[in-house]
Amino acid sequence: MASLLLVLDLAGMLVFAISGALLAVRRRLDIVGLLALAALTALGGGWIRDVLIGATPPAALADWRYLLVPVVATLATFWFHPAVARRERTVDVLDAFGLGLFCVAGALKALEYGLGPLPAIALGIVTAVGGGVLRDVVALRVPTVFGPGELYAIPAAAGATLAVIGHQLPLPSPAVATVGAAVAITWRLLAIARGWHAPVPSS
Amino acid sequence: MASLLLVLDLAGMLVFAISGALLAVRRRLDIVGLLALAALTALGGGWIRDVLIGATPPAALADWRYLLVPVVATLATFWFHPAVARRERTVDVLDAFGLGLFCVAGALKALEYGLGPLPAIALGIVTAVGGGVLRDVVALRVPTVFGPGELYAIPAAAGATLAVIGHQLPLPSPAVATVGAAVAITWRLLAIARGWHAPVPSS
Amino acid sequence: MASLLLVLDLAGMLVFAISGALLAVRRRLDIVGLLALAALTALGGGWIRDVLIGATPPAALADWRYLLVPVVATLATFWFHPAVARRERTVDVLDAFGLGLFCVAGALKALEYGLGPLPAIALGIVTAVGGGVLRDVVALRVPTVFGPGELYAIPAAAGATLAVIGHQLPLPSPAVATVGAAVAITWRLLAIARGWHAPVPSS
Repeated sequence: MASLLLVLDLAGMLVFAISGALLAVRRRLDIVGLLALAALTALGGGWIRDVLIGATPPAALADWRYLLVPVVATLATFWFHPAVARRERTVDVLDAFGLGLFCVAGALKALEYGLGPLPAIALGIVTAVGGGVLRDVVALRVPTVFGPGELYAIPAAAGATLAVIGHQLPLPSPAVATVGAAVAITWRLLAIARGWHAPVPSS
Repeated sequence: MASLLLVLDLAGMLVFAISGALLAVRRRLDIVGLLALAALTALGGGWIRDVLIGATPPAALADWRYLLVPVVATLATFWFHPAVARRERTVDVLDAFGLGLFCVAGALKALEYGLGPLPAIALGIVTAVGGGVLRDVVALRVPTVFGPGELYAIPAAAGATLAVIGHQLPLPSPAVATVGAAVAITWRLLAIARGWHAPVPSS
Repeated sequence: MASLLLVLDLAGMLVFAISGALLAVRRRLDIVGLLALAALTALGGGWIRDVLIGATPPAALADWRYLLVPVVATLATFWFHPAVARRERTVDVLDAFGLGLFCVAGALKALEYGLGPLPAIALGIVTAVGGGVLRDVVALRVPTVFGPGELYAIPAAAGATLAVIGHQLPLPSPAVATVGAAVAITWRLLAIARGWHAPVPSS
C-alpha cells in the first residue's frame, strides 16, 4: 500500500513537472529553465505547505527520489517536446490525477500537524495548485488556476473538504483519501470534457 | 482591549483583501482568482513574516477567523465591484489604517521572537507591504509599493521604527503601538492628500 | 579566516544588491523599489534556503550587518547609477564571485542541517541563484538564469557538487570550499568571455 502511494505520488509529480517543462520550452528557455520550472511545478505546492506548517525540510526536498522527478521530466521534454505538446490534452487528463492526490494528501498532512479543519482544507488546495501558480508566475503568466479556464481549484477544494470531514468523523484514512481524490479527479475531468468554468464577475 | 485589537486587525485585513479582489476583477479572473488575490493580499505579509521568524503555522493560517476575511471580501467584491471600484479612494484611505496597524504589529512580533531592532523594523515593513507585493506579482504588475506612487513603505518604516524604539526604552507596549500606528497612518494619508512621492533616481 | 569569509560574503552580497538596484533604476522605480530589489537579490537566496531547511530566522535577516548591504548598494546606485550601468560587465564579473561563494556556502550549510547530498546540491544552487530569480520575478522579467544567456546555474551546480563530494570523502572543509568556489567562478567567467550557453530545446 505504501509503495502504491509512493508510485502514485511520483506519477502525479511527473505530470506536473512535464507541464512546467513544456511551458519553459514555449518561453524559449534553456535546459536550466526547463528543470527549474519542472521542479517548481512538481514540488512547489508541497514546499509551500511544509514551510507554512513548519514541516521542514520538506519531504519533497529531503528525499532524493522526489528530486529525480523533475530531472526525468526535463530530459523527456527536452528531447521529445513536439510529441509531448501534441498530447497536451493527455497531459491535462493525467494532471487531474495529480490534482486529486495532492489536495487530499496536503489536507491530511496539515491535520496531522495539528491544524484545524478550515486551514487544512486551505493547505490541501495550496498543495494541489501551488506548484502551478509558481510555474506561471516565474514564466510571467497570470496563474491559469485563477481563471477563466475550466474548473481546477474547486474540485481540489471538494476533495480536500471530503478528506477533512471523513477524518473528523472519524472514518478510516485510506477510504477517506480514496473518496476525496476520486471526487476531485472526476469533477476535474468532467469540467474539462464539458467546459465547466467558475463564475466570473459581471463586467 | 484584546477584542478591540482583533477587530482592528480583521478590519485592516478586510481592506487589504478588497484591494486584492478588485485587482482580480480588473484582470478578468474568476471567483477563484478573486479569493486567491484577496487571501494573498490580506494574509501574505503576515505569512512571510511568520515563516521568516519561525512562528509556524502562521496565526493568519491556523485561526479560521482570519481565513474568513478573504471569503467575505471576495463575495462582496464579486457582487458589488462597480460600487467598490468607484470608491477606490476610500479603499486607499482605509488601507492606510491596515498599513499602520500591520507595520507596528509586525515589528513587535519580531521583537517578541528575539530579533534585534533593525531586523524587527524590516519585518514590520514586510508585514505591512508584503501582501500587496504578492498580490501585484501574481497579477503581473510591478509592485505599486516600489514606486513611483505616493509614499507607502516609508510611513510603514517610520511606524515600525517608533514601535521598536519605544519598546527598547522601554515604554508601555500599547502606548508605543498607538503612537507608531498613528504616525504611519497620518503620514500615509498626508502623502495621498498632498501627492508626496519617494525620490526617484535621475534618468 | 572567519573575518575573511565574512568580508567575502558581504562583498558577494553587495554585488548582487547592486544588480538588483540597477534593475530597479531601469524599471523607473523609486528609492523604495531600489532598496527592495537590492535586498531581495542579495539576501533572497539565503532566505529561501534557510526557510526550507528550518534555519529560522535566517542569518541574513537576524544579523544587522547583512541588512546594511542593500542600503549601501541602494545609496550608491541611486547617486551613481549612470557610472555603475556603464560598468555592467564589471558587475557581471564581480557577480561571478558571489555566485561561487554562495553555491558552496549554501550546500555546506544544508549538509550541516542534516540534508543528503542531492538536496544539499540543490540548495547550494538555490542559494546562489534564488536572489536573482526573486529580483527578476518582482520586476516582471523572466529570470535571466533560466536562459538563454551565458551559463550561470550550471557553474553553481558544479561548485556545489564539488563541495558536497569533498565534504563526504571527507576532505578538510576550507580546501573543499575553496576548490568548489574556484571552479564555479572560473567556469562562469569563461562562459562570459567565450559566450557559452546551456542547451536550448530545438524548436
